[in-house]
Amino acid sequence: MLNELHEECGVFGIYSKDINIDVASNTYYALFALQHRGQESCGIVVNDDGVMTSHKDVGLVEHVFTKDTLAQLGQGQIAIGHVRYGTTGTRPRLNAQPIVVNHIKGSMAIAHNGNLTNAFTLREELESNGSIFHTTSDTEVISYVITKERINSSSIEEAVCKAMPKLKGAFSIVLMSPTKLIAVRDPLGFRPLCMGKIGESIIFASETCALDSIGATYIRDIQPGEIVVVDENGVKSITEHCNKSKKALCIFEYIYFARPDSVIDGSSVHTARQRAGAFLSLEHPVQADVVIGVPDSGIDAAIGYAKQSGIPYGLGFIKNRYIGRSFIQPTQLQRETSVRIKLNPIASTLKGKRVIMIDDSIVRGTTSARIVKMIRDAGANEVHMRISSPPFRFPCYFGTDIDSQEHLIACQHTLDEIRDIIDVDSLGYLSLDNLTKICDNGNSGFCTACFSGKYPTEIPTDVKKNKFEQKISNRSTDNE
Amino acid sequence: MLNELHEECGVFGIYSKDINIDVASNTYYALFALQHRGQESCGIVVNDDGVMTSHKDVGLVEHVFTKDTLAQLGQGQIAIGHVRYGTTGTRPRLNAQPIVVNHIKGSMAIAHNGNLTNAFTLREELESNGSIFHTTSDTEVISYVITKERINSSSIEEAVCKAMPKLKGAFSIVLMSPTKLIAVRDPLGFRPLCMGKIGESIIFASETCALDSIGATYIRDIQPGEIVVVDENGVKSITEHCNKSKKALCIFEYIYFARPDSVIDGSSVHTARQRAGAFLSLEHPVQADVVIGVPDSGIDAAIGYAKQSGIPYGLGFIKNRYIGRSFIQPTQLQRETSVRIKLNPIASTLKGKRVIMIDDSIVRGTTSARIVKMIRDAGANEVHMRISSPPFRFPCYFGTDIDSQEHLIACQHTLDEIRDIIDVDSLGYLSLDNLTKICDNGNSGFCTACFSGKYPTEIPTDVKKNKFEQKISNRSTDNE
Amino acid sequence: MLNELHEECGVFGIYSKDINIDVASNTYYALFALQHRGQESCGIVVNDDGVMTSHKDVGLVEHVFTKDTLAQLGQGQIAIGHVRYGTTGTRPRLNAQPIVVNHIKGSMAIAHNGNLTNAFTLREELESNGSIFHTTSDTEVISYVITKERINSSSIEEAVCKAMPKLKGAFSIVLMSPTKLIAVRDPLGFRPLCMGKIGESIIFASETCALDSIGATYIRDIQPGEIVVVDENGVKSITEHCNKSKKALCIFEYIYFARPDSVIDGSSVHTARQRAGAFLSLEHPVQADVVIGVPDSGIDAAIGYAKQSGIPYGLGFIKNRYIGRSFIQPTQLQRETSVRIKLNPIASTLKGKRVIMIDDSIVRGTTSARIVKMIRDAGANEVHMRISSPPFRFPCYFGTDIDSQEHLIACQHTLDEIRDIIDVDSLGYLSLDNLTKICDNGNSGFCTACFSGKYPTEIPTDVKKNKFEQKISNRSTDNE
Amino acid sequence: MLNELHEECGVFGIYSKDINIDVASNTYYALFALQHRGQESCGIVVNDDGVMTSHKDVGLVEHVFTKDTLAQLGQGQIAIGHVRYGTTGTRPRLNAQPIVVNHIKGSMAIAHNGNLTNAFTLREELESNGSIFHTTSDTEVISYVITKERINSSSIEEAVCKAMPKLKGAFSIVLMSPTKLIAVRDPLGFRPLCMGKIGESIIFASETCALDSIGATYIRDIQPGEIVVVDENGVKSITEHCNKSKKALCIFEYIYFARPDSVIDGSSVHTARQRAGAFLSLEHPVQADVVIGVPDSGIDAAIGYAKQSGIPYGLGFIKNRYIGRSFIQPTQLQRETSVRIKLNPIASTLKGKRVIMIDDSIVRGTTSARIVKMIRDAGANEVHMRISSPPFRFPCYFGTDIDSQEHLIACQHTLDEIRDIIDVDSLGYLSLDNLTKICDNGNSGFCTACFSGKYPTEIPTDVKKNKFEQKISNRSTDNE
Repeated sequence: MLNELHEECGVFGIYSKDINIDVASNTYYALFALQHRGQESCGIVVNDDGVMTSHKDVGLVEHVFTKDTLAQLGQGQIAIGHVRYGTTGTRPRLNAQPIVVNHIKGSMAIAHNGNLTNAFTLREELESNGSIFHTTSDTEVISYVITKERINSSSIEEAVCKAMPKLKGAFSIVLMSPTKLIAVRDPLGFRPLCMGKIGESIIFASETCALDSIGATYIRDIQPGEIVVVDENGVKSITEHCNKSKKALCIFEYIYFARPDSVIDGSSVHTARQRAGAFLSLEHPVQADVVIGVPDSGIDAAIGYAKQSGIPYGLGFIKNRYIGRSFIQPTQLQRETSVRIKLNPIASTLKGKRVIMIDDSIVRGTTSARIVKMIRDAGANEVHMRISSPPFRFPCYFGTDIDSQEHLIACQHTLDEIRDIIDVDSLGYLSLDNLTKICDNGNSGFCTACFSGKYPTEIPTDVKKNKFEQKISNRSTDNE
Repeated sequence: MLNELHEECGVFGIYSKDINIDVASNTYYALFALQHRGQESCGIVVNDDGVMTSHKDVGLVEHVFTKDTLAQLGQGQIAIGHVRYGTTGTRPRLNAQPIVVNHIKGSMAIAHNGNLTNAFTLREELESNGSIFHTTSDTEVISYVITKERINSSSIEEAVCKAMPKLKGAFSIVLMSPTKLIAVRDPLGFRPLCMGKIGESIIFASETCALDSIGATYIRDIQPGEIVVVDENGVKSITEHCNKSKKALCIFEYIYFARPDSVIDGSSVHTARQRAGAFLSLEHPVQADVVIGVPDSGIDAAIGYAKQSGIPYGLGFIKNRYIGRSFIQPTQLQRETSVRIKLNPIASTLKGKRVIMIDDSIVRGTTSARIVKMIRDAGANEVHMRISSPPFRFPCYFGTDIDSQEHLIACQHTLDEIRDIIDVDSLGYLSLDNLTKICDNGNSGFCTACFSGKYPTEIPTDVKKNKFEQKISNRSTDNE
Repeated sequence: MLNELHEECGVFGIYSKDINIDVASNTYYALFALQHRGQESCGIVVNDDGVMTSHKDVGLVEHVFTKDTLAQLGQGQIAIGHVRYGTTGTRPRLNAQPIVVNHIKGSMAIAHNGNLTNAFTLREELESNGSIFHTTSDTEVISYVITKERINSSSIEEAVCKAMPKLKGAFSIVLMSPTKLIAVRDPLGFRPLCMGKIGESIIFASETCALDSIGATYIRDIQPGEIVVVDENGVKSITEHCNKSKKALCIFEYIYFARPDSVIDGSSVHTARQRAGAFLSLEHPVQADVVIGVPDSGIDAAIGYAKQSGIPYGLGFIKNRYIGRSFIQPTQLQRETSVRIKLNPIASTLKGKRVIMIDDSIVRGTTSARIVKMIRDAGANEVHMRISSPPFRFPCYFGTDIDSQEHLIACQHTLDEIRDIIDVDSLGYLSLDNLTKICDNGNSGFCTACFSGKYPTEIPTDVKKNKFEQKISNRSTDNE
Repeated sequence: MLNELHEECGVFGIYSKDINIDVASNTYYALFALQHRGQESCGIVVNDDGVMTSHKDVGLVEHVFTKDTLAQLGQGQIAIGHVRYGTTGTRPRLNAQPIVVNHIKGSMAIAHNGNLTNAFTLREELESNGSIFHTTSDTEVISYVITKERINSSSIEEAVCKAMPKLKGAFSIVLMSPTKLIAVRDPLGFRPLCMGKIGESIIFASETCALDSIGATYIRDIQPGEIVVVDENGVKSITEHCNKSKKALCIFEYIYFARPDSVIDGSSVHTARQRAGAFLSLEHPVQADVVIGVPDSGIDAAIGYAKQSGIPYGLGFIKNRYIGRSFIQPTQLQRETSVRIKLNPIASTLKGKRVIMIDDSIVRGTTSARIVKMIRDAGANEVHMRISSPPFRFPCYFGTDIDSQEHLIACQHTLDEIRDIIDVDSLGYLSLDNLTKICDNGNSGFCTACFSGKYPTEIPTDVKKNKFEQKISNRSTDNE
């Protein structure tokens, strides 16, 4: 569609001793609020005194859950939920989460946002001892690592704690055992994870907007490296893996992935985007008549740019809200004439104007070029493009699908070339320096690897060549 | 949901001699652009040398048409399409349009936006002569009136022309005979209807955004009272029913119904909304820190208010785009805590601020009160509500479902009472005088009856008591 | 599939003053018992004090009605239902029944089994007066004829009575007005129609098996030409159109269309089929080891043949019961090898045996040839085919889709040629004379036109050329 | 429904080097022929050079596979398929087969018919070493046991061979590795499994009717204990686990589970059933006018009884073929009057007659009593019931869901009591002695445990108390 970048997951969990709180429907509503983090598949598992009932499938929350399937989940004391965006070519139905596994000490359900950098190594180790895998997802690897520890541990949290040093990379996990709900965030805190409550019920979610949607109150974020355990005795925090010295929250959560109404690690996403826009105005000023944003994620930065520059903010486009997964894609012939089905410029805003257009990023450049052409066709005199992040130049190994370098326009072309390719009068990216200043919590503690190439953790050589699912898929022989 | 007002229809038609233009898929894509005008049912009829193939059903365009159903419509030279919002309690599947009827001179397909004020009288006359009706829609009445004239006419356009004086009220119609595509607009021009082209193909649509979506060029609007006929000889205009002296375009098309990127009768909808916002700022100024709009239709006016007043525009809410027809409504208990699933305020925009909130209208007041409470809960110091239209006080008989007076808050309460009910610090409506100045085409020629009570055409007494479908439904006896 | 002949309809109606009798679900269960009479579409209309609620669609009863759609029909005092098989090329969804029409005296719902021979003439007359038609079904024509009479009649039954002489051909109709349930059978009684009761509730159905399925008791058959009216005053019979001297019940109802457990006009269908088998044994005896029937309709006659001849009855085939409308048809290549998906011979019954195989008819001969080949492949030494009816030689105009003469094998080939084409050792058809003796009610009063060419009523010349729906479809111009 | 007993599975596999043989669609058609062995869920896995693509879901083959889902399976050289009936209360979607697992040497897909008696023990052993399970099916246990052996084996067949002694109970398995198709039958041969071919393609199936359905030729049955491996080098048989001295084919396959047109281990199912009927006639003769069978499985024995006794065979019932999974069950009130929706007696066969009714078994007796009542209501003078198997008295641990003893009527009542409960004039069961004589292959080598209590293999005490899935479900704590 229009958006070329995808986060891979959103997670949610609720523990309630209040029988008036229906854990299944609260999870259902919360997943609507997290739907932007993954539209490929979703699922909910309800835990009723240790019996776990699950439903998951390919599709949006609205379509996967009907009244019947939601009712069949039944009543329970704990539930977890997941929305997922899988990278192309994988098995979406098979890899839908949460995963429920059965082991010697009972059942466990797990929902994961992130990406293990050592998933392949861990899986081959497990397989060498005879383990079998049903999916091509690293979440199943995590399940295994925890389960292996569970055998010789006296509690699930002890097992999680022992497993943690073995897991490398990005992971924000919500899991439940028969009696406990547990939230885990990797020691660098790549992906967000927060805690809230309704009455006595404890909630974990990828973003605060999920708390808002069900009327819950925000308590705090899970610290990088922290394990939070909820059971009948209350909430317990295990901090032995917490790493106070270093943090690597994905900065692109603020720019694009998260919802503007969420607050991550203390900073408002909307405010961060506005600041990005304001910095852009300072870095790349230009004379113009109107500032517009590319919906939806460019809007906030455009408002920030407008405020800072004094140039009026305007509504540049109408995005069609009725186009979903069942939309029949136009043929190539029709596509030439029908790009405006999804996004249509408002001529009265643009005609005869010098336009500053804000977008969050340029990936391949194709979409940007089409949008710019529409603005010019609508009568704009000049088009100045401003991007609220630096150029993408490096792959992400921590849970997003930023394209391989051969497709990234900024790896293949100079700034001037890009400006010409997308046919704008001027082009400006936010500097890496200012990027790290868009949050209240200052300029330390972010992962900016996709822009800077500075990875906060070592990436194994083999992973650099092939990502996990591809490596697994490549293996197909039983010859010796 | 959040929106309490509904237009009842959008229409589309295409006539193509170019076999490279697929009339069915062009209609499909255009209906996506008109989907905001009706989400209850939709349909397409394709005419291949006089053989009409139809598919219509309850649901959004995306769900009613699959690859299979679209392919089954086949190739053709003419097609018409329709999206519909039906008033509550009617038979949505039965009344889906277009309607295809067979008569002595062949078949006819018809799609209609508007509302006949004399539908009941016409139907009873027809029934007294033995006519039978399959639907409870006034579109079937229009079909009958035209067909009756067709028997003694030498062409379909002659029949349409003869039928026109018998039809009272609002009607923008696209119809096709075996060889012709015809567009008709009532003499007062209540509802919009425009003409465009792609190459040699002629297109009619309720709004220009439908032209944009398929890469067509706008030609002109259909005049009030005009009949435009397209056949193998080209385009012919019949103007004998045109009424130069008076016009009554629904002013609320600009305020709420139409898409901001559309241009109706020469005026940009987005510009009109911005002007409404600007007038509001002049009529009801107030000291404040931020101007926000209630999505989606309040956004344009908010930008206009902000520009005029100099108070910065801000993003007040995130609207959840994933909530569709299959969303499972929360129970009453959950609803209290879960209003924020659909619309969530952005606290960083509102906290500690004096907020001006722009909406397009207040119907019952319930939704407004809930939104204001959310803003206050998010930390706003003051909330000043501005409405970009005057108070609703009178019923509409021309194709919208503006509620009966007993439910309209402005019929039951004074301005001060309303302000207290929805709990705002101040409340201001746009004046009727300024409302009629929001368009380029000046302050004459609008229907403002819902605000002013001045109906541009006489309303029969019986219609005032009961609308058409209700009257039909009330008849149920065969006793004599 | 395997069966090449199709009846076009089954009808059902129930009138109940007992609120413990749910008219909708009784109709639902009865339609299951009538499903063999039509598998293309089905529908139910429920009448609650004059308000008629309808649901109909393409598909089997099981798939068209879900718990939700059945519940939405609500409670009522009267209901009618219909199953339909439409001839190829028509519009199945549009033409689904019952049809609900609205007229000056209220609503009417109608379900029809049969075929009018003057439908086209009647429709053109109505259209010449400006009537419009939504369907290509003759049932809509019947609705119109009755409605036209209703205007000047003091009751619905008076209107039906006046309409009756205008309707030519075969019709067994169940209709309801706001307060009455009416059953009508054409004066020659082409199609079956019976009456039953549960407690005080009166029921009409095409076959008695529908009465059995809901625990109802059989009362009597509707007489040819009779109109039976049920209302709050009880049951009333109007016999003025009854024709005592002549009757023309379709004899093929006994041979193939009806269910063996039904009793039509006093004769058991199963017994009639057994008699046909017994007559076949007397007319065409042969030395053999086993008698088998082609499922399902050949089974009864095979048992009759076996009993009469003393040759043991055996199970020749297993028919796959899991193949429905969604079965993906094999490609031509696969078809050669996969005919046995649907019907598989039981080798142990056939191997090394002289086999008598009974079928109800031969239409084109293709299916028979394939079945015979399977039997030979299973090891049969000889195959003797016996057909429990005479050869098809003439088209049917009374509600079945017996093929045009160019495709009927018996119109194109001699008995010896047919024997060779389908590759059997001997072939024998039941004689016309014995065919008319298979029922308890003797050898008068049947329509045997498809075998004999003797039509019990005059067939208009134009109808002979083109059937109704085809004639309607052929009209497509509006040129004058 | 009417049938109270369920087999739990049917399996199929095909290996083809001929690119004109579409392995996916051949599997699809074969599963239709095996559908009677399991109607709850089904699945197909296609192997294209080691890449395994799978689709499985709850539902009949016809509904689970659409053109799209079948096409998505793509082309391949090997495919396996499965139909499943799961016992009540389990997780049907989760436990659908085939199961695809990934291990250190590649992928493996497995389809299983039968039941391991040591599944729980094996699973707990595996879990104690840290294995995790996704399902509650014993097929996953089998996958694990084979995979564990695979690590230290030089080929998949070596692993299967090593795993075999660890698996106790009934198993007929079809599995595929990246390059091989393997069929395995347990050493006692509880469940059937046969081999066939089309051209050079090799096929394995639970029953020969699946071979017939796709035009394949029967080669032979897999021997008890045999492992057959198909790869590019051809077909290889491993017989080291074959047990020549003892065999325990489930005798109830002949009486009820298998399709009459199948041949199992050299004996025709239809012939075996006829023999059971003939023996019944000799053991329990009675004066009567007609012999009828309860559809479908009682028909064959009734024909055998009729032939042996000289009493004519008659058609007793019509079974409604249109009632499927979506049928809305009648309420209790309706059920009293509506039992005849599913099965309706043919009065003309029964009225005034002394009737011998043959059924395959009596489980709880409820259904039998209802059927007998219908026959009496239809006018039968006497009803004599004959059962083509001995009374059920013992649970089955080998893959069927024969009820617990508390529900088996023969465990709770004497023969005379049962006769009175189901209200027949006389009742006779087939003797155990004659049961074992119904096949060509004589009176040795059957499992008759459900009738005799003589289990051919030891049953662990814990399994006797709780079956596998129940035991797994009972475990739900993570407390230590």
